[in-house]
Amino acid sequence: MDVGFIGVGRMGQAMSKRILGAGHTLVVYNRTPEKTTELAREGATVAATIAEACRGREVVITMLADDHALQEVALGSGGVCDSLGPETVHLTMGTHSVAAIQALAAAHARAAQRFVAAPVLGRPDAAAAGQLGIVAAGPSDAVSRCEPLFQAMGRRTYVAGPKQEGASVAKLAVNFVLGCALEAMAEGFSLVRKYGVAPAVFNDVMTDGLFAAPAYKIYGKIMVEESYDTVGFTTLLGLKDVNLVLAAAGAALVPLPSANAYRDRLLGAVAHGDGEKDWAVIAREQARAAGLE
Amino acid sequence: MDVGFIGVGRMGQAMSKRILGAGHTLVVYNRTPEKTTELAREGATVAATIAEACRGREVVITMLADDHALQEVALGSGGVCDSLGPETVHLTMGTHSVAAIQALAAAHARAAQRFVAAPVLGRPDAAAAGQLGIVAAGPSDAVSRCEPLFQAMGRRTYVAGPKQEGASVAKLAVNFVLGCALEAMAEGFSLVRKYGVAPAVFNDVMTDGLFAAPAYKIYGKIMVEESYDTVGFTTLLGLKDVNLVLAAAGAALVPLPSANAYRDRLLGAVAHGDGEKDWAVIAREQARAAGLE
Amino acid sequence: MDVGFIGVGRMGQAMSKRILGAGHTLVVYNRTPEKTTELAREGATVAATIAEACRGREVVITMLADDHALQEVALGSGGVCDSLGPETVHLTMGTHSVAAIQALAAAHARAAQRFVAAPVLGRPDAAAAGQLGIVAAGPSDAVSRCEPLFQAMGRRTYVAGPKQEGASVAKLAVNFVLGCALEAMAEGFSLVRKYGVAPAVFNDVMTDGLFAAPAYKIYGKIMVEESYDTVGFTTLLGLKDVNLVLAAAGAALVPLPSANAYRDRLLGAVAHGDGEKDWAVIAREQARAAGLE
Amino acid sequence: MDVGFIGVGRMGQAMSKRILGAGHTLVVYNRTPEKTTELAREGATVAATIAEACRGREVVITMLADDHALQEVALGSGGVCDSLGPETVHLTMGTHSVAAIQALAAAHARAAQRFVAAPVLGRPDAAAAGQLGIVAAGPSDAVSRCEPLFQAMGRRTYVAGPKQEGASVAKLAVNFVLGCALEAMAEGFSLVRKYGVAPAVFNDVMTDGLFAAPAYKIYGKIMVEESYDTVGFTTLLGLKDVNLVLAAAGAALVPLPSANAYRDRLLGAVAHGDGEKDWAVIAREQARAAGLE
Repeated sequence: MDVGFIGVGRMGQAMSKRILGAGHTLVVYNRTPEKTTELAREGATVAATIAEACRGREVVITMLADDHALQEVALGSGGVCDSLGPETVHLTMGTHSVAAIQALAAAHARAAQRFVAAPVLGRPDAAAAGQLGIVAAGPSDAVSRCEPLFQAMGRRTYVAGPKQEGASVAKLAVNFVLGCALEAMAEGFSLVRKYGVAPAVFNDVMTDGLFAAPAYKIYGKIMVEESYDTVGFTTLLGLKDVNLVLAAAGAALVPLPSANAYRDRLLGAVAHGDGEKDWAVIAREQARAAGLE
Repeated sequence: MDVGFIGVGRMGQAMSKRILGAGHTLVVYNRTPEKTTELAREGATVAATIAEACRGREVVITMLADDHALQEVALGSGGVCDSLGPETVHLTMGTHSVAAIQALAAAHARAAQRFVAAPVLGRPDAAAAGQLGIVAAGPSDAVSRCEPLFQAMGRRTYVAGPKQEGASVAKLAVNFVLGCALEAMAEGFSLVRKYGVAPAVFNDVMTDGLFAAPAYKIYGKIMVEESYDTVGFTTLLGLKDVNLVLAAAGAALVPLPSANAYRDRLLGAVAHGDGEKDWAVIAREQARAAGLE
Repeated sequence: MDVGFIGVGRMGQAMSKRILGAGHTLVVYNRTPEKTTELAREGATVAATIAEACRGREVVITMLADDHALQEVALGSGGVCDSLGPETVHLTMGTHSVAAIQALAAAHARAAQRFVAAPVLGRPDAAAAGQLGIVAAGPSDAVSRCEPLFQAMGRRTYVAGPKQEGASVAKLAVNFVLGCALEAMAEGFSLVRKYGVAPAVFNDVMTDGLFAAPAYKIYGKIMVEESYDTVGFTTLLGLKDVNLVLAAAGAALVPLPSANAYRDRLLGAVAHGDGEKDWAVIAREQARAAGLE
Repeated sequence: MDVGFIGVGRMGQAMSKRILGAGHTLVVYNRTPEKTTELAREGATVAATIAEACRGREVVITMLADDHALQEVALGSGGVCDSLGPETVHLTMGTHSVAAIQALAAAHARAAQRFVAAPVLGRPDAAAAGQLGIVAAGPSDAVSRCEPLFQAMGRRTYVAGPKQEGASVAKLAVNFVLGCALEAMAEGFSLVRKYGVAPAVFNDVMTDGLFAAPAYKIYGKIMVEESYDTVGFTTLLGLKDVNLVLAAAGAALVPLPSANAYRDRLLGAVAHGDGEKDWAVIAREQARAAGLE
């Protein structure tokens, strides 16, 4: 396939290489062009403008850090919407708000362009190994046309339905279920500590059976060791994501009491100076609320 | 060892058989004597009174349904406390409140008897297979004396420290972390449904990676299929347990906001007539709160 | 009327004097007899036992500090239940749990005695002035028989229905609505402080219009001045009351999310050493949660 | 003074008349010009454009329905920012988000214009009577210059400090304290109903003493009568305001657990079709959550 790729940060770079590796033709664009050098060496063409990256492609992928970047790249003058041919697919793979995806869907519909949202689960190492989880939504024929690319990048594709924002919501919901798991663990740790039970013992009890999954094993260990300075994902990013979830839930009229409780701990953690720590630091914030710190 | 066992319901029966099978001498007592028949056939002596089950034993195990039964059996006239010899161990293996365990610990201390609390993780099938998880707490020499019995009944023993109520709290905390996981999943399902994502797809996304653990796989499936009439653990029992957790947390001055959110859904589910359904039915209650039912 | 009065602490003493002042015959009993001296001087007969305070009376009032004291006095051997003649009214005016009132109602029913619960709103100064609010519940004829006494003690009687525990719940619910008002104010103060608004200005805005009521004026002022060492009602007593509310709500299957939020701040305040401060100190706990202290 | 007034809906119209009545010179502008007819009759000059309403004035007031309208009018091409002379005061009196006020403050600072935010408390009848509460914030000299206008429109001005968004936050915080009061009352009503206490009796108990304020008397009555079809303020508007509060609190890192609980009931009420009812309808939503409807 003839593919454009806009936004080659750490994730985008790893994903681009997988596409090249699968034999597709790739034109890449990045606001700061240095990041395209390596891809050029591996066979990608570097576009000087977004328009150049879009024109003539079958699918153009955007992999951008946030809604603001997406709006600029996609809806700005000379952006993806302006540059994409009719019936061409814009495939956006970052984690975006429901509102941003809905606005984009409307714009592409007006321009008779196709639009697929397919946020991914996994970090750069998973991307490099082609082991991402991909949650895709959009018109089924458009999703089908992206299939070869999904196969190059991911281990599994979950098709979330015809509405693009459904993919965003599903992705965000998994993040928030994880955040709630962290908060519940944090509450558990603070409770047992008050009764003289060593956190490591409680962690063993918890992760040995029903919770023998990475989510609990990884974060339980961090909470036991209080190794919040080794950062996988920051408290501030957690806060950004849960705000997206609560906005989506608000728009759809869904009360999410656990998400509220979790967000309050994130806010407290940031207020106490732990914004750039690993988000598992909400265990410290929970301990603080219980008078333990 | 010479062991007494009081309370041979489904769990107690399976545990007793493991003790017999390991070659220990066993005297059993049950309020309704019919339940002892099978154990007698397998070699246990049946005691006519609690006192008879206690006198001369090295360890007496109680496995009772709730605090009320434990208090009657242990602290009533002619009960365990009255009947146990000095330095003998009372090993209680049911799930009890912190307050009940603390009261019992005080009574045994006054009587110069030894006391170990060791609630278990696992259902009757795990008990029958000797695969229980055992969370034990009490004076370390008393816990050590119970080791041969733990080996007969469990796959692993977690030592939670010298305070008996620590074992209760650790067990209850695992239950509550699980309840919070159910509530978070329930919130996730209600959110994605509003955006047209099929619950089964969301469940796949969720349980494929970080949450590839029984807790999420088992309960996610129940929520997708809405098979709440196949009951593993009822909403009412979930409510009983979270009340014990919140009482323990209140006594120790620990705010548990996720537990509050989870308890509120249990209350709502029972109020809407789902008390005897599987506790995963809180997903229906959450959907109700979002106007989906 | 011929009245018995058991429990003449600060409240009970003031209430007893009002009854004497209205011309009724009064027999008083108190566990520590010193407290009855003054009442004896004013014309009350002092009973040596509960039984003596009960026998031959038309109505026996109990005004006790908590459930435990009530149970001992009313249900203990030689207590009110044992001593009261048939058809005589036991009128309990302390703040008690739903469960305690229900247990007492059942006991009195078995003994063919009449039972009215009538907790009061107001502090000792209101009691001394006969200005209490009285929330009364029980069989209507029994409530009617207490009317002359209510008139002596209170400014207004609210009849809450035939079930005695209804009076408890109504009283507790008012307390909890007040606690939630404190928590909401506390949240408001912490929010405006972060934006550089002086608490005193916010308090003026708030209490000048819609909230021109004692609850907001009194507690808003305390929060502005942070005068938590002048104690009207302690954090620990607030915690005790909200626990009674949540137990009553749990038994009746009512989720109370605001009460949960309020209780969590009380727990945090006590955990941080503010248990004996005025309960308005939850404003400091809220500020702490926002990183302001 | 020479005053411009942009936005003469119900509130703006009443406020404009007060300014005219106090003898000031007034130029008015409204997007739909019909609304200016009556004011013209009373002596106001009608401007054809925003620019015309701004040029040469000493103070220009905007009274607009939401952030979107404010941004268009103030920051759009040919808007207030483009048209105001240096050192002239833009006085915005609607209820706006912290973020919108901050953006506007920055724009006016760049243009060397003065900016005051002064949201009001009170409905159109209070505006007509010159009885509004006014919460004003901005540089003190600019606030002072608005004083004669505040005197014409309000009964009292609260000065919230030099930061304009402080006035927004103080106004929003009062709204949210009120919303939380409604939610707490709603919880109280649902609880007492379960125990057979008539809502009207509970309302009497509650509003007779500590809560003898309009907030409780007005909304308690609505909840007792369930007269949610007589709409003072809709659930949807309540939701909009609490979303502004939570955004402001999020930006300032303040957890607001009561606001979360209140917002969840608003969401549920709207989800159940009560979005256009009076916001006191959260009492029905709370009852629903307790299985009472």
